[in-house]
Amino acid sequence: MTTPNRQLHLNLFIYPAGHHEAAWRYPGSAPDRVLDITYYQELSRRAEAAKFDAVFFADGPALPDNIRYASRFRLEPFTWLSGIAVATERIGLIGTASTTYFEPYNLARLFASLDHLSRGRAGWNIVTTGAANAAQNFGLDEHPVHAERYARAHEFVDVVTKLWDSWEDEALVVDPESGVFADTDRIHPIDHAGKLFRVRGPLNIPRSPQGRPVYVQAGSSEDGKALAARYAEAIFTAHQTIDSARSFYADIKRRAKAEGRDPDQVKVLPGLSPFIGSTEAEALRLQREFNELTQPEYGLEQLRRVLGVDLSGHDLDEPFPRELIPDDPELNAGSRFQLIVGIIDRERPTIRQLLHRLAGARGHWVTAGTPEQIADRIEEWFTTGAADGFNVMPPYLTGGFDAFAEHVVPILQRRGLFRTEYTGTTLRDHYGLPRPRSRFAAPVVPAPRREPAASAPA
Amino acid sequence: MTTPNRQLHLNLFIYPAGHHEAAWRYPGSAPDRVLDITYYQELSRRAEAAKFDAVFFADGPALPDNIRYASRFRLEPFTWLSGIAVATERIGLIGTASTTYFEPYNLARLFASLDHLSRGRAGWNIVTTGAANAAQNFGLDEHPVHAERYARAHEFVDVVTKLWDSWEDEALVVDPESGVFADTDRIHPIDHAGKLFRVRGPLNIPRSPQGRPVYVQAGSSEDGKALAARYAEAIFTAHQTIDSARSFYADIKRRAKAEGRDPDQVKVLPGLSPFIGSTEAEALRLQREFNELTQPEYGLEQLRRVLGVDLSGHDLDEPFPRELIPDDPELNAGSRFQLIVGIIDRERPTIRQLLHRLAGARGHWVTAGTPEQIADRIEEWFTTGAADGFNVMPPYLTGGFDAFAEHVVPILQRRGLFRTEYTGTTLRDHYGLPRPRSRFAAPVVPAPRREPAASAPA
Repeated sequence: MTTPNRQLHLNLFIYPAGHHEAAWRYPGSAPDRVLDITYYQELSRRAEAAKFDAVFFADGPALPDNIRYASRFRLEPFTWLSGIAVATERIGLIGTASTTYFEPYNLARLFASLDHLSRGRAGWNIVTTGAANAAQNFGLDEHPVHAERYARAHEFVDVVTKLWDSWEDEALVVDPESGVFADTDRIHPIDHAGKLFRVRGPLNIPRSPQGRPVYVQAGSSEDGKALAARYAEAIFTAHQTIDSARSFYADIKRRAKAEGRDPDQVKVLPGLSPFIGSTEAEALRLQREFNELTQPEYGLEQLRRVLGVDLSGHDLDEPFPRELIPDDPELNAGSRFQLIVGIIDRERPTIRQLLHRLAGARGHWVTAGTPEQIADRIEEWFTTGAADGFNVMPPYLTGGFDAFAEHVVPILQRRGLFRTEYTGTTLRDHYGLPRPRSRFAAPVVPAPRREPAASAPA
Repeated sequence: MTTPNRQLHLNLFIYPAGHHEAAWRYPGSAPDRVLDITYYQELSRRAEAAKFDAVFFADGPALPDNIRYASRFRLEPFTWLSGIAVATERIGLIGTASTTYFEPYNLARLFASLDHLSRGRAGWNIVTTGAANAAQNFGLDEHPVHAERYARAHEFVDVVTKLWDSWEDEALVVDPESGVFADTDRIHPIDHAGKLFRVRGPLNIPRSPQGRPVYVQAGSSEDGKALAARYAEAIFTAHQTIDSARSFYADIKRRAKAEGRDPDQVKVLPGLSPFIGSTEAEALRLQREFNELTQPEYGLEQLRRVLGVDLSGHDLDEPFPRELIPDDPELNAGSRFQLIVGIIDRERPTIRQLLHRLAGARGHWVTAGTPEQIADRIEEWFTTGAADGFNVMPPYLTGGFDAFAEHVVPILQRRGLFRTEYTGTTLRDHYGLPRPRSRFAAPVVPAPRREPAASAPA
């Protein structure tokens, strides 16, 4: 599975003050700058200096209820990534956008435009919106159920892909002499008429530098995996253990192959939230310090949302009351539900212990250690079929990222696991993905093979 | 009506290679840079150096059919303006966005975020989508009729306004000590339940620097004027003659007053496309040169779309066949229809003459002259109740704007009609508009008046 040249892929997942729920209370974070674009530009430039593949932004079209306790508003990814694009040169720009509450034509335009603006560095993290309160921001009484959201996601991605293909590369002529600005024979209506969408097209923006922005996917439920196997070129996934990650990895690669795809072109990138210290004890102390800054109300709200269980009034030091989790098929279908229940069943934590387990990165892998230890764990996941790289989720920013960039990245580079220089300019280049041709373009006819001359000229 | 300190407001309306349909064929334009964000950043910085109020971008969610003959794709305004925001300091950033094909929650987020990113320089040009082919990009068989689109626009703006108000200024607490990130008592669901939209809110982004981005409106039909009188703080409008502009100006100010608004806080900004020469003959020669580069197919498509009349096969030098314009109430309701029919009735042009009349700026006021002449005309419109300023639409870019900035702006400044320095930092500051309080905020109670002490302490 590993080839000598196989390289790690690393994204910096940017959350306002950091991923730990108490990051904004930690003296080393910058909560006063969370609405300041220059803060995000600086972070992205540091990630670029560390040769990261991309920065990554989450999104959701509703306000989380626990905003009282943490920096959980939602920066709007298209505007924010555009502001970062023009302040960077090489790093990829991955934005999350919901297939549940956007119109495909609007979304296709936003990403095509971001891809132009960044000269080929855009990626779309394809999600369905799981937050039930979002429905009421879009005129719906009921949040669409899991399967329905994924059915919409499949058709949505299909429509957006067609729109991105609707201009062939050669459509933009710009010949002042003849007066032809665009060759309309190479601009195609898509005439999509599906179960959920009818979209005529074409897009009103020329084909973008990457042809299609990179398809990223997050959400590892059964439905999510099916979507990923079909479309995703990079997958952001949450695993608490290397075994869970390995089995996910093998499953996804197998499914991609079954879809007729090259499994190497589906990069599996689990989340990783590292507490880094010059000794392991120092790293663990730092993690404890963060846990002490948490507020239980924050995590209890998260459990209410994901597990459907209300624990207010319970003693936080009692064993987690597993039996109170309702049997709700809709909630059960979510990958985050399954992940948290997995922790409960495996570790039998108290409520407080579970809250601390989730405080770091909402269920993603949190690990504390020295730079060597972190690098060892990354290498182990990378070389034993658990990951092609990671979405790095620093507990706090900017310091939590600086420690990773200054101390862990050089070790990975010395071991030959991570690039020391970019070898391309687009996000597709960084991930080693081909640039797709438009489905409307004529197939490439190989140039006629010339017989070698009987005697080579001098 | 004029006060000594009354100042012109000038926006630069940026169209890829310029506003003249043949701009991209003119040797002084840069059609090879129309997808390059640095070109737009440079233009915006030049407009900022000239102390313009704002740059302005049009938009529409469909590809115009005449893309073959001119640079008529659609840059996506949110991404593009974000890329410009971080490369400028003071100039306003006005983006057009359709109330017909967006969801209010998504649109409110995009603008609030742009306002944060630019530190208070965002403006929303509120339009309904008139292009009939857009409907088919959004699953509709029929383009919604004019009145229906405006009914939706009214409710849409109401919803977006409530969402922008949903966080009070004081909601963002960020107190690491107490652990309160946001005061949820100051974040309000909007619970909008209207005829067309049901939106619970709140927005998931804190209140933006301007409170609400500036409300701009374009489209001067009866329905358009009603919307403008109710909401607009700046109006972009098309007039061929000073008389038409004066009557529009008086009408809008009267309507705003009837809505209980201060008419001075509704800036009327007609479009102005200037051909500038060091002599009038030179300016007219330049305009002729552009007209000679036009392609009739481009303009004929525009007439088909706006007037509903197909003139292919007609001799372009025959008088415009007025009788062929169909009596279509839907088309007749459009302000662009009325404007073009006005030209036909007033000037009795040949088809070719009409095409040339519209080639410059699609029906906006095109004028050719020396810098002094252009300044005189601007001053006349400004001081006799026809305009509060202009949306400047250079025939070609960047040269057409440079000529205006270098030669016309200094004359306006010398006459005391236009600022020589910015006096504020936000677009509201530039337009002299107050920053609105959130509707959910407690009314400001005047501080109790202190009686002057009988004897003042030393």
